[in-house]
Amino acid sequence: MGIEKRNVASTYCELHCVHGTWGTRETSGAGAVAHIQLEGFSHLSEEDIRELERICGPEDVLCSGPLLEDYSHDEMLRVRGVPEAVVFPETTGEVSSILRYASARKIAVTPRGSGTGLCGGAVPVFGGIVLCTTKMNKIIEIDRENLTATVEPGVLLLTLHETVEKLGFLYAPDPGEKTATIGGNINTNAGGMRAIKYGVTRDNVRGLEVVLPSGEILELGGKHAKNSTGYSLMNAFIGSEGTLGVVTRAVLKLLPLPRRTLSLLVPFDSLGEAIRAVPKVLSTGILPQSIEFAERNVIFAAERYLGKKFPHTGAPSYLLIRVDGNSVGEVTSMMEAIGDACLEAGAIDVLIADTQERQKAIWDARGAFLAAIKSGNQVDECDVVVPRDRIAELVEYTKIVSERTGVRIESFGHAGDGNLHIYVIRDSIPDDEWEKRLEKAMDLLYEKGEELGGLVSGEHGIGYAKRKYMLKNLSPGEIAIMRKMKAIFDPQGILNPGKVV
Amino acid sequence: MGIEKRNVASTYCELHCVHGTWGTRETSGAGAVAHIQLEGFSHLSEEDIRELERICGPEDVLCSGPLLEDYSHDEMLRVRGVPEAVVFPETTGEVSSILRYASARKIAVTPRGSGTGLCGGAVPVFGGIVLCTTKMNKIIEIDRENLTATVEPGVLLLTLHETVEKLGFLYAPDPGEKTATIGGNINTNAGGMRAIKYGVTRDNVRGLEVVLPSGEILELGGKHAKNSTGYSLMNAFIGSEGTLGVVTRAVLKLLPLPRRTLSLLVPFDSLGEAIRAVPKVLSTGILPQSIEFAERNVIFAAERYLGKKFPHTGAPSYLLIRVDGNSVGEVTSMMEAIGDACLEAGAIDVLIADTQERQKAIWDARGAFLAAIKSGNQVDECDVVVPRDRIAELVEYTKIVSERTGVRIESFGHAGDGNLHIYVIRDSIPDDEWEKRLEKAMDLLYEKGEELGGLVSGEHGIGYAKRKYMLKNLSPGEIAIMRKMKAIFDPQGILNPGKVV
Repeated sequence: MGIEKRNVASTYCELHCVHGTWGTRETSGAGAVAHIQLEGFSHLSEEDIRELERICGPEDVLCSGPLLEDYSHDEMLRVRGVPEAVVFPETTGEVSSILRYASARKIAVTPRGSGTGLCGGAVPVFGGIVLCTTKMNKIIEIDRENLTATVEPGVLLLTLHETVEKLGFLYAPDPGEKTATIGGNINTNAGGMRAIKYGVTRDNVRGLEVVLPSGEILELGGKHAKNSTGYSLMNAFIGSEGTLGVVTRAVLKLLPLPRRTLSLLVPFDSLGEAIRAVPKVLSTGILPQSIEFAERNVIFAAERYLGKKFPHTGAPSYLLIRVDGNSVGEVTSMMEAIGDACLEAGAIDVLIADTQERQKAIWDARGAFLAAIKSGNQVDECDVVVPRDRIAELVEYTKIVSERTGVRIESFGHAGDGNLHIYVIRDSIPDDEWEKRLEKAMDLLYEKGEELGGLVSGEHGIGYAKRKYMLKNLSPGEIAIMRKMKAIFDPQGILNPGKVV
Repeated sequence: MGIEKRNVASTYCELHCVHGTWGTRETSGAGAVAHIQLEGFSHLSEEDIRELERICGPEDVLCSGPLLEDYSHDEMLRVRGVPEAVVFPETTGEVSSILRYASARKIAVTPRGSGTGLCGGAVPVFGGIVLCTTKMNKIIEIDRENLTATVEPGVLLLTLHETVEKLGFLYAPDPGEKTATIGGNINTNAGGMRAIKYGVTRDNVRGLEVVLPSGEILELGGKHAKNSTGYSLMNAFIGSEGTLGVVTRAVLKLLPLPRRTLSLLVPFDSLGEAIRAVPKVLSTGILPQSIEFAERNVIFAAERYLGKKFPHTGAPSYLLIRVDGNSVGEVTSMMEAIGDACLEAGAIDVLIADTQERQKAIWDARGAFLAAIKSGNQVDECDVVVPRDRIAELVEYTKIVSERTGVRIESFGHAGDGNLHIYVIRDSIPDDEWEKRLEKAMDLLYEKGEELGGLVSGEHGIGYAKRKYMLKNLSPGEIAIMRKMKAIFDPQGILNPGKVV
């Protein structure tokens, strides 16, 4: 086991360091003064590596070789930082020991699941240890009476979905990225396509076991459906992107699996018309499971990527709608009411997918949108969320940004909940020109999002890449409080340094 | 306007001060050291009163006369503390000015809505100012496109329900106490009867405007259905019982109003059987809007209290179940499946209430349970929440506690979500004996709740009266973090002192 690749922390944040200023940061104002040390982390010595091996077993510590590179970026590839060691703990006790040791030695620790994030949240921009939860991947219990699943953080979303569905249950959150871990979903408060009816990850977590940087283990919430016992620390961890503690176990809410689903593919003459149909759909009094939108270009990309034909590509824009219920009669009457509402709102047609195959064709394509857009190209993403009635305006504005900056922009997303995924695409733009145009495009998009009452992130988080925009989007008072919260849980700032606040 | 009744802070906490020890409290451990001053509050001078009158207008400041007594207790009457002044701000600006002034003068401020709490959360145990939100009672906007209601904190739950239902929407949280304010519901994270299907207040709040003790105004969240932009400060305020800030505006989630509801009244031979039927009901794959349980004694009390006959009183125990949907066919098929499940689980019969009148008879009685038990009697309450499958055990244990302590105990509550309301009833027990037996009974009940994996409060909060039990129930680490959170938002400890942590 060599250690020659360990002292590489100096390679951090090659692309994005312009967005942050490092150093000792002091948050002041009324109340506890919070000192968060943002540098001065120790590099890993041979002794440190031996201690990590002692804690986890040598097979669960990676500190050299080409595999290390896999843990130096996430899915978006834009933020980079090479870890000095990657550890794969298998128990809460091991996580606690790692964190206690890292605290004592002041080593940066970056928690990571599958690394499917898009904002650099799991990238070790200060080097140090990557704490990867992929070996904590057991579904511990499915409790049929309390309708809960107790899981380790490394369980993949697709594994959880398959497991509980076989038993007649639904775990409601349904982000497009099914190879993400549940721990990652909790840390970003992932939303997904079923949020309009069933809420986001936050609404579907009942309890968490969390390890603090000190090594202390907290049990928060449990199998209870209600809780008014003191401040909700559990909710502080959800969406905190691994900056406050490491989630080592979660109790998730299950629902009875709806027996029937039915999907509608609704073509429109323009995206504006499609999006303006959404309130009309909701005014039927029916809450669909999902209402997604897409333009033809994105659908073509998905067809190419999957090598499969989409059921309809003759229109410029589409709504993809899915309803669920317990009987054919129930979903049929939902479908009829929604179909009528769409036609009244100007839809060209309403196509019904009532077989498993036809539904699969639609939702497989939807699931492939991101991969299709990224395929063979460099992109960056804006995950802004606006009030539902402002989406059309924002999507129309992306065309203006595209013209003004000379970059291609594609978008798709959750028409039902106001969360857009806007992709700025490089194509063949040369290096320096690309960075300049990308920054300009992002600045314009986030500015417009804010003007429309939006927030920087609907479901992908802030991570490293979106800090600049969050600092602009939220009030200084709010940011100051967040920094003080960080200092409560992680006074030395060793946990996922450089992220969020 | 006299001021002779102002210096009465010495009358605070007559009954419960044994549970708390006051003084300067220092939370230590890793991280920021949090100093929360718990005494040394200033009494109100004539000049202070004049300043409050200048801020709110003299008609909105009450500082003498018999009305002051109304603000010295809540619905439970057990915790008492007379305010030196009650102010009724009408704008966020006024709230901000009051808090800024109180901070500068170090005057205790206790936020209050309708005072329907049961744990002393809104009782000014340190005297000072009661900040009553009842004049901030406007429904500012119903947004049909974004499915949100924007309201001031003093709006009553019943007003909100009526207003949105007329427009075809549902505000889902449905606590029994309909004269509570929305601000109070947010501060206790109230749950209610529809939580099993629609979640608790936390799940139905999209955005908050909050004023900190410093006077600073924060806007948190908004009309967005998703938000992964930094730590969720909004969730820190929900359930914080007015100890971190004053909620001055809320954006609430609306749902399309289900067009049909149907209620079932299901008699059982024993409460154990009734409660053990709940998982069988849920295994039908149908999520009812509500599953409540009650014993005959409580129903008799409600009949006497309302002067109305309950549809059935021949059995010892009942489940009250309500389903909702959009068509007669849908709710009928739900009812049939649930009815069959109840009969299989040993129900004596299944009575269907399909008219508005019959449904009203059941749910009016359910709504009157608490008032009926309290009527002409002294009681104290235990609002424990346990995993749904442990309720039967806890209810059976209440009989043992009743025998061991010689006090009458009645319970009813939310069979669907594990939240029990257990009432210890005084009847004709003499003063000193009552306090002794009550304390013994409460200790036993909370101990058992904890043994069953329960938490101290499901939906009524901790307030003043339940602090002792929360401090036992949660880990020292969790409590230490909560105290540090309190110090971030309220470093001087002027806001609702003596409550929660």
